[in-house]
Amino acid sequence: MSEITRVALDAMGGDNAPGEMIKGAVEAVKQRGDIKILMTGPEELLEKALSEYTYPKDQIEIVNATEVIETAEPPVMAIRRKKDSSIVVAMNLVKKGEADAFVSAGSSGAILVGGQVIVGRIKGVERPPLAPLIPTAKGVSLLIDCGANVDARPSHLVQFAKMGSIYMENIIGKKNPTVGIVNIGAEEEKGNALVKETFPLLKECKDINFVGSVEARDIPSGAVDVVVCEAFVGNVILKLYEGVGGTLIKKIKGSMMTSLRSKIGALLVKPALKATLKDFDASEYGGAPLLGLNGLVVKTHGSSTSKEVCNSIIQCVTFKEQRINEKIRDVISPAQEEKKED
Amino acid sequence: MSEITRVALDAMGGDNAPGEMIKGAVEAVKQRGDIKILMTGPEELLEKALSEYTYPKDQIEIVNATEVIETAEPPVMAIRRKKDSSIVVAMNLVKKGEADAFVSAGSSGAILVGGQVIVGRIKGVERPPLAPLIPTAKGVSLLIDCGANVDARPSHLVQFAKMGSIYMENIIGKKNPTVGIVNIGAEEEKGNALVKETFPLLKECKDINFVGSVEARDIPSGAVDVVVCEAFVGNVILKLYEGVGGTLIKKIKGSMMTSLRSKIGALLVKPALKATLKDFDASEYGGAPLLGLNGLVVKTHGSSTSKEVCNSIIQCVTFKEQRINEKIRDVISPAQEEKKED
Repeated sequence: MSEITRVALDAMGGDNAPGEMIKGAVEAVKQRGDIKILMTGPEELLEKALSEYTYPKDQIEIVNATEVIETAEPPVMAIRRKKDSSIVVAMNLVKKGEADAFVSAGSSGAILVGGQVIVGRIKGVERPPLAPLIPTAKGVSLLIDCGANVDARPSHLVQFAKMGSIYMENIIGKKNPTVGIVNIGAEEEKGNALVKETFPLLKECKDINFVGSVEARDIPSGAVDVVVCEAFVGNVILKLYEGVGGTLIKKIKGSMMTSLRSKIGALLVKPALKATLKDFDASEYGGAPLLGLNGLVVKTHGSSTSKEVCNSIIQCVTFKEQRINEKIRDVISPAQEEKKED
Repeated sequence: MSEITRVALDAMGGDNAPGEMIKGAVEAVKQRGDIKILMTGPEELLEKALSEYTYPKDQIEIVNATEVIETAEPPVMAIRRKKDSSIVVAMNLVKKGEADAFVSAGSSGAILVGGQVIVGRIKGVERPPLAPLIPTAKGVSLLIDCGANVDARPSHLVQFAKMGSIYMENIIGKKNPTVGIVNIGAEEEKGNALVKETFPLLKECKDINFVGSVEARDIPSGAVDVVVCEAFVGNVILKLYEGVGGTLIKKIKGSMMTSLRSKIGALLVKPALKATLKDFDASEYGGAPLLGLNGLVVKTHGSSTSKEVCNSIIQCVTFKEQRINEKIRDVISPAQEEKKED
């Protein structure tokens, strides 16, 4: 297991780039000797920034990339035109087999497009889903898909369920994870056309632990481990999680400032409250993988700090060690002869 | 304005029926002399229960109904077969013009089906949307549609936007309410097929204040007054609101019990906290109207207490006074000759 995991890190993506990206990379290589980071971005800039840290020099290599893809740019165009951007250069390292994984806090759209166009899908995978972890009362659940490919077909959702189960079991360590499909009622006959068509297909799947529909109300309590839905609904769930949490917390804080009595109380509960709220902050759970690609692509939150970047990098090691892609390949197209053991 | 509003109340619907329904009716007629309640349910049972209250006798009338539709029953079948149920009898009163409005805390499915089948749609209305109010940082927004009719078409969403604007302006008193369509990004080119088709149609509407896409993250902060979406997404939003709120509150309460310090603090912040959480509880906002029907149909939360029932009944008066249905008729099919003034 002392194999090296090579991570291509987009040093220029996210609100806190390159500062926190670089710091996160340094933290990662200080923690683990089995990581090699290929950091993409303007060479001089990165060299200067890195020179301020002490770390095992041979574990971080700078790969020059002169352009940056901005968040607002139309992704398809950006990936096609900015061949020397930190995202495209890093993804090409994965494509060429020079890196095992890609990590970026940059433009979601560009990462999703680049993942498909540059890194490429595992044979048989129809769509690579973006699958963030969301906090629940019991720990975390995997929300799959939150990507950019809306209007999915039933066969896509079935693949999401399979890939999500593999991730949840092998990366998060949840044995035989339960799988639920997001629905507007618990009964099998409820739902929109997509859910009604997908439900019986999931029931037939032997390689997942499908438990039926999950209503949105029950997601935060941790009703299922793998929450399957198409990307539009997944996006609404992820964003509303943040939105409701954020507004509620603001309201609670405001309410505690309304009287002297509650102000004193607020001082006393503050540490406990802070820990809880952090626990329930979706952005704390680091990178969301884009599953089903020939290599691991991890999108971390745009506002990621070094801690999240470091966590995302270390997550790549587990991904490689657990041979997630080989497992996905076996489940998605089991009849294939190309049983690589590399 | 001293016209009487006649409300058909399903006394047998909801978790707390008939007790809280009856109590709510009594509270409503004690508060206002311009309400007449037609209460449906088993005559003897209701008579006995009512006899324990003092109230203006001529304002509550019992209309016998011997059957009850249970929440778990398939709605279409239940409406068709249980002709003498409290829901069907009450809805028929609206259909026959003997009542202006219908209020129930019973089976959502049966109310949605009955609303369309018995009460009937206003001419030109393609689908009657269920439109609950949801709490936001700024007050409330109207979430339209949360009903049972999923897989909507663009023309439905346009009608939802128009009807929702009328309701928000005339019932809630929000002048020129802003309208947003739920989307996975702020840009016009984002979205699924339904949203992409609907967006330009909403932009063309002269009778609404359309402000573009609204991301789920921004709904709780009150970014728009009327939140337009198809029912599957609306249901996910409504339920997740409850779910995230509920889980977060449980976690916060739990965290305050972890140390002596925070326990004392909890005692001090309790009243302020309680008020805030109540403020942010979707179930506090009483009835959700099913808009676009020949009469008002209001679905109150299944766990409604007398207070919510009373509020929902009084809401019917405003609905009649503000001539909401006439306004909907004018906007949906302005060319029609039937300009009733009754």
